Amino acid sequence: MTIPVLDVRAGIEAENAARAEKVRAFLKEKGVYLVNLMASPGAGKTTLLCRLIDELKTGFSIGVMEADVDSDVDARAVSMHGAKAVQLHTGGMCHMDAKMTLEGLMAFGDGLPRLIFLENVGNMVCPAEFDTGAQLKLMLLSVPEGDDKPLKYPLMFQVSDILGVTKCDTMPAFDFDFDRLKHNLAVINPSLPVFPLCCKSGDGVEKLADEIRRRVCSIIPRTC
Amino acid sequence: MTIPVLDVRAGIEAENAARAEKVRAFLKEKGVYLVNLMASPGAGKTTLLCRLIDELKTGFSIGVMEADVDSDVDARAVSMHGAKAVQLHTGGMCHMDAKMTLEGLMAFGDGLPRLIFLENVGNMVCPAEFDTGAQLKLMLLSVPEGDDKPLKYPLMFQVSDILGVTKCDTMPAFDFDFDRLKHNLAVINPSLPVFPLCCKSGDGVEKLADEIRRRVCSIIPRTC
Repeated sequence: MTIPVLDVRAGIEAENAARAEKVRAFLKEKGVYLVNLMASPGAGKTTLLCRLIDELKTGFSIGVMEADVDSDVDARAVSMHGAKAVQLHTGGMCHMDAKMTLEGLMAFGDGLPRLIFLENVGNMVCPAEFDTGAQLKLMLLSVPEGDDKPLKYPLMFQVSDILGVTKCDTMPAFDFDFDRLKHNLAVINPSLPVFPLCCKSGDGVEKLADEIRRRVCSIIPRTC
Repeated sequence: MTIPVLDVRAGIEAENAARAEKVRAFLKEKGVYLVNLMASPGAGKTTLLCRLIDELKTGFSIGVMEADVDSDVDARAVSMHGAKAVQLHTGGMCHMDAKMTLEGLMAFGDGLPRLIFLENVGNMVCPAEFDTGAQLKLMLLSVPEGDDKPLKYPLMFQVSDILGVTKCDTMPAFDFDFDRLKHNLAVINPSLPVFPLCCKSGDGVEKLADEIRRRVCSIIPRTC
């Protein structure tokens, strides 16, 4: 008994990959740096963004695309910190793909900011699977989630370029061990840079902002 | 402060709707009846399918498209009962869309069965949101899941044409009430036909099979 096996995912991926190339071409042409920010719900994406905007806004015009099921609370928060915000309603979709990202970029109109953060849907699975065309994939893991998460969600840790560990001030309350985290990362993505963060006090944010600035300047030197 | 709000979901939906029309045209041209079978993981989709195949295979050639993350256990099970099976690996996607469905239909090649079941990914949310082009949406709710599920997953119950309630033999062990279920359905989809099923004993399967046969014959009379 031979059952034909079809990888229906492949077609979706090929289509998204082609559209991600379009996003990359658009970003290059316009001189825009796009950061895809991914994490579980409640990991502190918006709080970190507000801090990063404060650090980086003197150097660059900053935009944020807020992907949410249907509220605009986060978009209002980042606006208050001086970012140009676009609210993307995904209506139940668990991730942003390249097509939606391009639509979001277009929504900035003529005043495209130099540095744009895409705050992806709060989810550790689906966002990892879709290339949005962003130059940088920044993921957050919050201390309360646990240091075992690279074992449970390997793809997210594998595709990311930077890992921010948020809520580090709560470490005494949780059995979270940085050595164990690095051990768990060793197989999946051993060279992943890890930034400990406490967005409440601001600890670690400046260092992460410096790293993002360095990366923007290496891609779009004329802005620095 | 005005924040532009963009419904990025709309583009995805429009694209899928256009592709669902293609599926419908294909099914009409070939004289094929497609059933989209949706439920939570473990609700008994495959067990019911095996029973339905036994009931219906004397009348129609039957095919099954098994959408799974990456196994082919279910495809082997339905094959044993005489259905032509195609295994669709969704690679992490939580639903089938019209594009993937069309790919699956093509995989049957020249020997397209008259009646095809698409066993969707085990999930109560995403599959409800994507029109696959199927003529019939059959959803299952198992007794252990509880009679409150229409309140938690309204869309699934709203878009479905038939509801099968599986594992009815376990009703004494769970606080499941058919009147409460119908009360919960009253606002969402009051005319939804409900079929109590026990796939272990086979109770109720014949009645459901008769209903499916009636619907196939009304759409493709020349097969009956």
